[in-house]
Amino acid sequence: MKNGFENEEGIVCGRNSVLEAVTSGRNIDCLYLQKGLSGGSLGAIIKECRERHILIKETAREKLDSLVPGENHQGVAAVAAAAEYAELEELVTQAKSKERPPLFIALDGIEDPHNLGAIIRTAEAVSADGVIIPKRRSAGLTAAVAKSACGALEHMPVARVPNMTAALETLKKQGLWIFGAQLGETDWNQADFTVPAVLVIGGEGGGLSRLVKESCDFLVTIPMFGKINSLNASVACGILLYEAVRQRMSRFVW
Amino acid sequence: MKNGFENEEGIVCGRNSVLEAVTSGRNIDCLYLQKGLSGGSLGAIIKECRERHILIKETAREKLDSLVPGENHQGVAAVAAAAEYAELEELVTQAKSKERPPLFIALDGIEDPHNLGAIIRTAEAVSADGVIIPKRRSAGLTAAVAKSACGALEHMPVARVPNMTAALETLKKQGLWIFGAQLGETDWNQADFTVPAVLVIGGEGGGLSRLVKESCDFLVTIPMFGKINSLNASVACGILLYEAVRQRMSRFVW
Repeated sequence: MKNGFENEEGIVCGRNSVLEAVTSGRNIDCLYLQKGLSGGSLGAIIKECRERHILIKETAREKLDSLVPGENHQGVAAVAAAAEYAELEELVTQAKSKERPPLFIALDGIEDPHNLGAIIRTAEAVSADGVIIPKRRSAGLTAAVAKSACGALEHMPVARVPNMTAALETLKKQGLWIFGAQLGETDWNQADFTVPAVLVIGGEGGGLSRLVKESCDFLVTIPMFGKINSLNASVACGILLYEAVRQRMSRFVW
Repeated sequence: MKNGFENEEGIVCGRNSVLEAVTSGRNIDCLYLQKGLSGGSLGAIIKECRERHILIKETAREKLDSLVPGENHQGVAAVAAAAEYAELEELVTQAKSKERPPLFIALDGIEDPHNLGAIIRTAEAVSADGVIIPKRRSAGLTAAVAKSACGALEHMPVARVPNMTAALETLKKQGLWIFGAQLGETDWNQADFTVPAVLVIGGEGGGLSRLVKESCDFLVTIPMFGKINSLNASVACGILLYEAVRQRMSRFVW
């Protein structure tokens, strides 16, 4: 999607540039649209996005201002996709065909591209079967995420689901167990990660949402011995994934 | 150090503003000085920094341009300190007075503030005895690091040493064992982290430097099962620190 109007983060702004980027057939991760705006070429932009199933995120003007600092964005910005999304059903089928229990990572609202990139990198390092993110309240597969993933995005499939709770319920019906990373009854090294597993990591702000938490079979605690009460999301994910690997290495060819 | 010339990262630029910030007695983490420049008030700025033991980092113009985008920095910028540095000797004395083996984290060239902040946060979470960073090739305790540390910087002491290899040799003489995180002969869960330990994490670019690597008693491998060959530095640090905690929890009051 590189053109004269695109910044180094892969973001195009301004109505004419965005309309051109969308209609050119380039792979767009999402469109940011300023809340309450309409008229002019915005109608055409929205129509083209809908036809192409491009995710539209309505947002405050301040969010757009921070995406493209100093630019006259005219209430609209399109973010280039750095990779294609995978289909969750296909990932599950592939995972089940392997001679070891599936291992997925589901992210409940990770909005920091650094964290999403680092998590994809760790997921690839442990040879997980896929990363699942929600359409809303989540970073997408943008240039910034690809950079933080340090090449892992090319090898680790990421599925984007409209509703995380529904996706987790579907995975449960397929025999997977849902492990939520949240203060709970089980210490991280006491949980049994050798079963078919989905590890759910909450967002930077509030951790797991209520509905997602209720979908979890187990809540797994990383003990904290100091004064602060949480870890960086990508660090927490790494600790739990390598605990899973430590347990699985002795029982399966990993 | 907040004033009209300071950006939200706590960076002051321009010769008059920098001279004022330095002489005001405010706590400055370091001064960035464009290589090859001299004359004008630069001499006075350098003299004031030396008298106050403020670290001067000579750097390319491009580094200054990226620190304060769009500003006329005149070849000089001062970065506000978000916390005071601790003295390594004091940290070791304190650590040895506890009824459990010391645990330090040494960082060999972590330059990304997100990573340094996340590592300080994890160090505080495991109640480590301190973080050690080098004066050169390292992020300092800036506003960006404090933000990523999410409050942990107020509780976790950080010592800044002129020479990391010399610091590690001193720690060895005091009975600590040096564990380098680098492909080596020992898998992360086979290393014995219950001894008095310094965990050394390499920088984002090239991992451990040769001299630091030679100072290590053990090289500890985090196994990689995919196609990429390294993890994010703060994620790797978290995995190793919680492996140390897992081993120590059963033997000491942690």
